[in-house]
Amino acid sequence: MFGCLVAGRLVQAAPQQVAEDKFVFDLPDYENINHVVVFMLGTIPFPEGMGGSVYFCYPDQSGMAVWQLLGFVTNEKPSAIFKISGLKSGKGSQHPFGAMNLTQTPTVAQIGISVELLENLAQQTPVASAAVSSVDSFTEFTQKMLDNFYNFASSFAVTQAQMTPNPSEAFIPANVVLKW
Amino acid sequence: MFGCLVAGRLVQAAPQQVAEDKFVFDLPDYENINHVVVFMLGTIPFPEGMGGSVYFCYPDQSGMAVWQLLGFVTNEKPSAIFKISGLKSGKGSQHPFGAMNLTQTPTVAQIGISVELLENLAQQTPVASAAVSSVDSFTEFTQKMLDNFYNFASSFAVTQAQMTPNPSEAFIPANVVLKW
Repeated sequence: MFGCLVAGRLVQAAPQQVAEDKFVFDLPDYENINHVVVFMLGTIPFPEGMGGSVYFCYPDQSGMAVWQLLGFVTNEKPSAIFKISGLKSGKGSQHPFGAMNLTQTPTVAQIGISVELLENLAQQTPVASAAVSSVDSFTEFTQKMLDNFYNFASSFAVTQAQMTPNPSEAFIPANVVLKW
Repeated sequence: MFGCLVAGRLVQAAPQQVAEDKFVFDLPDYENINHVVVFMLGTIPFPEGMGGSVYFCYPDQSGMAVWQLLGFVTNEKPSAIFKISGLKSGKGSQHPFGAMNLTQTPTVAQIGISVELLENLAQQTPVASAAVSSVDSFTEFTQKMLDNFYNFASSFAVTQAQMTPNPSEAFIPANVVLKW
């Protein structure tokens, strides 16, 4: 039903089925992985009203499994690219895999797919840094970054009337920041 | 031998074979495509000493096919993610597909894979903006963007001594921009 592809490596199309509705791919040497593609093979669609939440699972320093929600695949959006480099220092999130006895070797991570009701998926929030979906989200990301910057910089804005005299300090007109 | 996946869509595993060593996938509605994954299915490897160059082909305003080299897949690196949004204004590059009579409808682009000697591939330079390889390039990109911003904003920087009196205009101390 699912395939998984680490950028640069061979595709995997045979996940381990660890429960009726749960599938797991092993990611050996995960510290050298940047992007992972998760996709439906196109053979079997999700049952009506269902979709898949996609998790990344890696062992923390003490060997405990940390799960992070990357995003979703559905019949309408049957593939997604995720960026997993940079997630390793993040906090774990709630996940439906329980204490499944997945082999935890220090260099092997997992991609877990849990088949769930679409309405349950809609209530889950993936880790933001995993999204590699579109120019739109990239543009949104940079726009958000710039908005943050403007808010940050504006909080320091002064008018000439408020300035303490210091003729050598350089100032940037606030409208220049806005125009950019 | 090859698969092609547009992020968000179903995987394609049946390219059109347009010559003994040339394979083409259609990309409908390509203006709404951001990322494309090209990968070997893992069934048949390249012959010893051979690999594949991966091209993106789209119709220009007059309907002529423009080919751009995205990168490569080889037995050692059997998959790659490419960003094709942003390529549409780029110039075409040399390509081995000749004047193949591919259907050119305005909304359909192609991914072309040409099987060639590895030593030929090594002499070809993909368009830089197609690479989706690592966090590093993302970080570099945002860093470059911020550097550009600082250079842009600094060019407007004034000291109080240079200011024309206008007590209502807001100014941001330049060191705030740098610190951010």
